[in-house]
Amino acid sequence: MPSTEHVRHFQDELEQLKTRLLEMGGLAEEQVRLAVKGLVDRDHDLIDHALTSDDPLNALHIEIDNRCFTLLALHQPMASDLRAIVSAVKINTDLERVGDLAINIAEAARRYATHPPVKRLIDIPRMGSIAQSMLRDALDAFVRRDTTLAQQVLDEDDKLDALKTQIFRELLTYMLQDPATIEPALDLILVSRHLERIGDHATNIAEDVIFIVSAKDVRHHAAEGN
Amino acid sequence: MPSTEHVRHFQDELEQLKTRLLEMGGLAEEQVRLAVKGLVDRDHDLIDHALTSDDPLNALHIEIDNRCFTLLALHQPMASDLRAIVSAVKINTDLERVGDLAINIAEAARRYATHPPVKRLIDIPRMGSIAQSMLRDALDAFVRRDTTLAQQVLDEDDKLDALKTQIFRELLTYMLQDPATIEPALDLILVSRHLERIGDHATNIAEDVIFIVSAKDVRHHAAEGN
Repeated sequence: MPSTEHVRHFQDELEQLKTRLLEMGGLAEEQVRLAVKGLVDRDHDLIDHALTSDDPLNALHIEIDNRCFTLLALHQPMASDLRAIVSAVKINTDLERVGDLAINIAEAARRYATHPPVKRLIDIPRMGSIAQSMLRDALDAFVRRDTTLAQQVLDEDDKLDALKTQIFRELLTYMLQDPATIEPALDLILVSRHLERIGDHATNIAEDVIFIVSAKDVRHHAAEGN
Repeated sequence: MPSTEHVRHFQDELEQLKTRLLEMGGLAEEQVRLAVKGLVDRDHDLIDHALTSDDPLNALHIEIDNRCFTLLALHQPMASDLRAIVSAVKINTDLERVGDLAINIAEAARRYATHPPVKRLIDIPRMGSIAQSMLRDALDAFVRRDTTLAQQVLDEDDKLDALKTQIFRELLTYMLQDPATIEPALDLILVSRHLERIGDHATNIAEDVIFIVSAKDVRHHAAEGN
C-alpha cells in the first residue's frame, strides 16, 4: 500500500508532466505559426528562424518521454492515471511530429519564396489558424479531461479537409493555365497537406482524451459497437 | 516479490504481444503491397480491395493497445520490459498509420487510373519494396532486439529520400512539357510522399529498438552527446 506521501509525490509529478506537455504544445504551435507566417509574408528571416529553432522542442520531447518512464517505473499507476501516462507518451510523439511538419512547411516556404507568388494566400493561413487552435484545444482538453472540448477538436478536422480540397482544386486551375506556376503551386499543395496532418495529430490527441476519461475507444468508429 | 508462475505468465504475455505486433506488421506490409501493385497494374479490383480491407488491421490495433495496458497494469514491469511495452504502444501506432497511408496510396491509385498513364512506373514500385522491407526488418529487429538490423533500417531511409527527390524532378519535367499530365503526375508525387512516410514509420520503430536495447536515445541525433 503506497504511503500518503508517496501518493502526493506521484500527483505532483503527474501535474508537472501535464505542465511540460502544455509547454511542448505551446512550442509546437509557435513553430507552426512562424512557418506559415514566413510563407505568407515571404520573410526569409522568419523562415530561417522556423528552420533552426526546433532544439527546445526536441529537448522537451526527450525529457517528457523520460518523465513518463520514471512515473511508470516508480509508481505503478493504475486505471485512469495509467491511461493518462501512456497517452502522454503518445501525445508527446504527436507534438514532436508537429514540430517536424512545421520544418517541412518552412522548407516549402523557402522554395516558394524563390518564385513569384502564385496568388494571395488566404486559405493556407486559415488552415494554419485552425490547425493551431485544434492543437491548443486538444491539449487543454487533455489537461482538464474535457471530452466536450475534445469532441469539438474532432469536428474541426472536417474544416481542414474541406479547405485542403478547395486549395488543391484552385491551384490545379492555376497550374493548368500557366506552367510557370507549377513548381511554386506544388509547394503550396504540400503545405496544405502538412497542415492537414497537423490537424490529424490534434485529432489523435483528442481521441486519446476521450479514451482516458471514458475508457471508450473512439478510434476506427469502434465506439458504436462497444 | 512476484511468484515464479507470475513471472512465467508475464513472459508468455510478452511473447504473445510480440507475435501480435509481427502479425500487425505483416498486415500493414501487405496493405502497402496491394496498394502499390494496384497503382502499377491499374487493377481496379486490387485497388478496391486495398481500400476496403483495413478492418483486421484496425481490430488488431485496438487489441494490441489493450494488451499493453493490461501488461502495464497487472505486472508492473521494470527496466527493459517496461521500455519494450511502452515501445509496443508506439510501434502499434506507427503500424496503424502505415495502414492509413496504404489507403491514401490506393485512393491516389484510383484517381490515377482514370487518366492515361504518365509513364512506366519503375521508381515508385522500387520505393514500395524498400518501404516494405524496412518495415519487416524494423519489426524483426524489435522482436530479436537486434540493434545492427535496426541501424540498417535507419540507413535504408536515405535511399527512399533520394528516390522521392528523383521522382519529383522527373514528374515536374513531364508536367512542364504537357499540362495533361499535371493531374495524374500530382497523384504520383503524393504516392511517393506516402511511401516516404511509411519509411519514416519504419525508422521510428528502428529508433525504438535501439532505445529499448541500449537505453540510448538516437532521436534528434542526441546519441553523440550522451
